[in-house]
Amino acid sequence: MMSNTSSQQKFSNYLELVKETNNYPYPTHKPYKQGHWLLRLNNTSNSVVGILELRVVELLKEFKLSSVGFAEPVFHFSSDELKEENKFVTFSEFYDSYEKRTQIIKAILTYWRDNSLHESLKGWRNELYPVIPYTGSLKEIVFEIERVGSFLFGTSSFGVHLNGYTFVDGEMKMWIARRSPTKQTWPGMLDNMVAGGIALGEKVSTTVIRECEEEASIKYEISSKAKSCGSLTYITHSKYGIAPETQYIYDLELTPDFVPTPNDGEVGGFQLASIEELKEYLLKGEFKPNCGLIVIDFLIRHGYIKPDDDEPQYRDILLNIHRAFEFNFE
Amino acid sequence: MMSNTSSQQKFSNYLELVKETNNYPYPTHKPYKQGHWLLRLNNTSNSVVGILELRVVELLKEFKLSSVGFAEPVFHFSSDELKEENKFVTFSEFYDSYEKRTQIIKAILTYWRDNSLHESLKGWRNELYPVIPYTGSLKEIVFEIERVGSFLFGTSSFGVHLNGYTFVDGEMKMWIARRSPTKQTWPGMLDNMVAGGIALGEKVSTTVIRECEEEASIKYEISSKAKSCGSLTYITHSKYGIAPETQYIYDLELTPDFVPTPNDGEVGGFQLASIEELKEYLLKGEFKPNCGLIVIDFLIRHGYIKPDDDEPQYRDILLNIHRAFEFNFE
Repeated sequence: MMSNTSSQQKFSNYLELVKETNNYPYPTHKPYKQGHWLLRLNNTSNSVVGILELRVVELLKEFKLSSVGFAEPVFHFSSDELKEENKFVTFSEFYDSYEKRTQIIKAILTYWRDNSLHESLKGWRNELYPVIPYTGSLKEIVFEIERVGSFLFGTSSFGVHLNGYTFVDGEMKMWIARRSPTKQTWPGMLDNMVAGGIALGEKVSTTVIRECEEEASIKYEISSKAKSCGSLTYITHSKYGIAPETQYIYDLELTPDFVPTPNDGEVGGFQLASIEELKEYLLKGEFKPNCGLIVIDFLIRHGYIKPDDDEPQYRDILLNIHRAFEFNFE
Repeated sequence: MMSNTSSQQKFSNYLELVKETNNYPYPTHKPYKQGHWLLRLNNTSNSVVGILELRVVELLKEFKLSSVGFAEPVFHFSSDELKEENKFVTFSEFYDSYEKRTQIIKAILTYWRDNSLHESLKGWRNELYPVIPYTGSLKEIVFEIERVGSFLFGTSSFGVHLNGYTFVDGEMKMWIARRSPTKQTWPGMLDNMVAGGIALGEKVSTTVIRECEEEASIKYEISSKAKSCGSLTYITHSKYGIAPETQYIYDLELTPDFVPTPNDGEVGGFQLASIEELKEYLLKGEFKPNCGLIVIDFLIRHGYIKPDDDEPQYRDILLNIHRAFEFNFE
């Protein structure tokens, strides 16, 4: 089968797919030192909250507080720019609270959007993401940021993805979604049965239950049986910016008669895919990239991608989907 | 329950346990630059095969080839020792083959052992481990090394661990082993039902089948149903040296009437533990440390350690058991 479909394949193996999403260079690799700056709350190493591309740092340096009615300088920029080590953009002492940081970041992003200073801000979502230090937990929110702006500041984002599966005549099959052709991002691509961002202050398990209802009309009696199975982490560098993501993974076994129903218009439709079909869709690049990672993790956990046969780079896949956010050169 | 047993607890949470095993500093952390040298086959960044403590580098520098009848110099030592970057011990060009490297490393280790130059060589096992570049696959063996010596050279080692579980009245229970009180390493501690090293040239799945028979008298009809579920990686720095390990993980569901039987004298006995008992044993530190990691991974994958409630550092656990062997500062 592999040879027949190879002409339509986008990836020659799963690791290649995984690395397309986890494509931000590791700190030990040379391309890492490409002029990006780390955003910190203060001078301690565990307060890193973002990664900024040079063009964003330049925008921040040019930014005039008076233009948005603020008086207190917002950032310190580390002076030794020629140093090969990390360069830091650090919040000044005045911005010591959740509220102050949220307010100033909102003012800056709004100004950039209104003055067309950054292309990607055209896609403004009016949706707030919590910002958390890279090494922190979901309980340590340090400010809020407009969803599109999170890519510019390279702040961490958090979501849940749920694999819905069932057995048909003893064979495991997975429910997958086709994204609506009118959806703003990745229209028409394949998706996990249920996925969504963790809202401000929301518990992980609450997000799962809510998204099950919203995206696939799955009632609490069923969705509450979803089982947490781990979390995936990776960093994607794209034209939108830098996205360090954490996805909490759930598996939900469904009865063979259960059929998910689109609810909120973001899903075009659902289909029940065999393991062979899933592998084919993955290598053809039909999945929205990070959803592909979640399917690969599922296939590994359930023994359908094996260390011996299917994938010589088995271990490397697991490393690339459990990436440490290690940017604290102490 | 937690508060009653707290006086007997060794760890206050699972992350603490995991970090005791994955305790080698990350390249981004200051303690990493503690004088360790990287062992390389040649000058390319993907040929790193080991990490050497300073005392081992000193022994290598003092080593006289004539004492073992060799003529060709074995290693180049990078000259700029004051540099904060990686320091390299590199095989000289003569040692360009599997055979030559195996031979010289064996000669060096034997000499050190016979002249009592390193404490840990007293525990000589007469068991050979394959050496593989950190970023390579099991198919790229570059030399063989005596098991105890692998810690001195900090070379990668590979094993399989199998979680045997069953359902009693609908409740999941896991078969765990108590190591023999006379076993050389970690006597009397708790272990996974089956675990063992991957022998030279052996396939991962073959190791599982072989170890099932050797350690728990499990026949092929049953062991061949074991399902691969991922791989764990971590680096332990102990008095023995530095051990970067890869463990391939298998789950095997057993019928309630199945009882494992010790076979090779390395296992003292087996017991069927409830999820609550497993959690208690983990925090009490009763598991051989790396076996504890495998149990924690099992509990996460099966939904018994959850992102919300049980463990605020859920994601950090997953990062610490999927550690990238990133030592190639390019």
